[in-house]
Amino acid sequence: MFHCPVPVPVGDRVLLGHGSGGKLSADLLRQVILPAFANPALDRLDDQAVVEVRGLRLAFTTDTFVVKPLVFPGGDIGSLAVHGTINDLAMGGARPLFLSAAFILEEGLPMETLRRVTASLQGAAAAAGVPVVTGDTKVVEKGSGDGLFVNTSGIGLVEDGLLLSSDQARPRDAVLLSGTLGDHGIAILAQREGLEFECPIESDSAALHGLVARLLAATREVRCLRDPTRGGLASALNEIAARSGVGMLLDERAIPVREEVKGACEMLGLDPLYVANEGKLVAIVAAGAAEAALGALRDHPLGREARRIGTVTEGHPGLVAMRTVIGATRVVDMLAGDQLPRIC
Amino acid sequence: MFHCPVPVPVGDRVLLGHGSGGKLSADLLRQVILPAFANPALDRLDDQAVVEVRGLRLAFTTDTFVVKPLVFPGGDIGSLAVHGTINDLAMGGARPLFLSAAFILEEGLPMETLRRVTASLQGAAAAAGVPVVTGDTKVVEKGSGDGLFVNTSGIGLVEDGLLLSSDQARPRDAVLLSGTLGDHGIAILAQREGLEFECPIESDSAALHGLVARLLAATREVRCLRDPTRGGLASALNEIAARSGVGMLLDERAIPVREEVKGACEMLGLDPLYVANEGKLVAIVAAGAAEAALGALRDHPLGREARRIGTVTEGHPGLVAMRTVIGATRVVDMLAGDQLPRIC
Repeated sequence: MFHCPVPVPVGDRVLLGHGSGGKLSADLLRQVILPAFANPALDRLDDQAVVEVRGLRLAFTTDTFVVKPLVFPGGDIGSLAVHGTINDLAMGGARPLFLSAAFILEEGLPMETLRRVTASLQGAAAAAGVPVVTGDTKVVEKGSGDGLFVNTSGIGLVEDGLLLSSDQARPRDAVLLSGTLGDHGIAILAQREGLEFECPIESDSAALHGLVARLLAATREVRCLRDPTRGGLASALNEIAARSGVGMLLDERAIPVREEVKGACEMLGLDPLYVANEGKLVAIVAAGAAEAALGALRDHPLGREARRIGTVTEGHPGLVAMRTVIGATRVVDMLAGDQLPRIC
Repeated sequence: MFHCPVPVPVGDRVLLGHGSGGKLSADLLRQVILPAFANPALDRLDDQAVVEVRGLRLAFTTDTFVVKPLVFPGGDIGSLAVHGTINDLAMGGARPLFLSAAFILEEGLPMETLRRVTASLQGAAAAAGVPVVTGDTKVVEKGSGDGLFVNTSGIGLVEDGLLLSSDQARPRDAVLLSGTLGDHGIAILAQREGLEFECPIESDSAALHGLVARLLAATREVRCLRDPTRGGLASALNEIAARSGVGMLLDERAIPVREEVKGACEMLGLDPLYVANEGKLVAIVAAGAAEAALGALRDHPLGREARRIGTVTEGHPGLVAMRTVIGATRVVDMLAGDQLPRIC
């Protein structure tokens, strides 16, 4: 049985859910965007393209940030835009080298907000050691935007012989997760809805290229890396399972979620598996290298809580299943709708 | 005398004019954006960064397109986004290699519009021989965007020894223009305002990398190339004059403007020197190479109407002057306000 979400025709209007990172996004991508552009690099559906220029393997990626609110616990749209694009490069095994930053400003935006966001963007880029070398600024009329949107694109360098891609997972590989799930999404939602918790929940927004370097120094038997952003862990693993033609079996007890995030999710009717993260990675690693990989992740401040959360399986290609805390097995499907719009 | 527009404090809110490409844009850039990011590549203020990766000189650029309407005579936001970014690379002397495309869709956008724009973007990229290799799609709520915005970033390769930059103009250099002024801006404005002309005016939107290749094959004594987009020829030449510390003297009679564009400009109270172009370039070339350069430009379909329009001067650094058709001399300043918002 090849399991794959049934594609639904995209309809004649763009819906908010088409930006969710889940099933509706996949439908839009497969039915409208990819058919227009069809080429080998795009069709790989990874978060970055790897292209060759005179023998050098360059990674190239782009990401637009429309997060609301602009400032949230643990970060803002500026730092998020740096971390997100660095992470897309790092997930391809690339060392990030250069960033661009392009702003769409809405007429009337307080200059103070722009100053804060640009300072934060620059601060995050400097901390990560990846300079912003080119940029652009456009202004639209009041009511034609929403304060500030920012696009960052990035260039990185991939070492010879390294191939990380969502079609590389193999049966018996280990599924590793670098830390707790759901912190970014819940931090944004709490801020947006004015929810208050005893322990404030902060976004996990962070640049993961250092963590990836540590991992790849410990083992080259890494098949695939993904940062589970829009659509969460569930959508990322479903994409890998479908692209690699493998199944996955997860162990719910092994998946770390902070108590306060768990509580907020229960209160809001959300499943942490579908909530966005901005400083976590999932690594598919050959079985024999799993211990070394886990040790390397835990050696890094951003991977202290890394866990092995499951195994790649031969049966049920395209299907992600999970043994729950009560011992039952459930299917973990892609995010179907628009759980949390404008989360990044 | 060093002539430079007097900087005015940017104020506490973003204005529509901050996106004009003229003086207000320069103020925003100098007072808010550049101080945040200050680094050598950005400070060159060219339309692209040239960075080195293991001995290769890569050009990297980003541009967001917010043009209104999305479809206009001679093109649409998709083809424009390809041409604009290819031209930013070509103005640095780079051979364009790869593009990214990132969309912000407003909820409710007709799917037909998205299909049309992506097809047009892909068509323009294919025609130019520069593939779109990576992308991103976000959706914002109805009222938080304006149909569709698109960012394209691009990577190009700069040959060894080539240095084109706005600080390279020298006294006695020739100022060459590849064709007529104002077609893009007037086409957009006519469409937006529902103006009708006997001869419909079409945007000149085109990819200029082939024209640049022809020019550089004929002479390497090119100092600087610019495509006069937002802010028009006047703003582009003012930036070069200021950055190179030189003056310029233009000859109004030599500057080609279509009769219908001239007429529309008179009717609308616009000066073609400040109207945006999307398929023209201005080249600053050593005096001795001017004839060869002009011949090379005219040899290419996109440079048939190329003219020498002026000379770089030693006196009045930073000042662009023009001998008018009636023999007087006027100062050609930077665009001061927001002549035409959302022109690209």
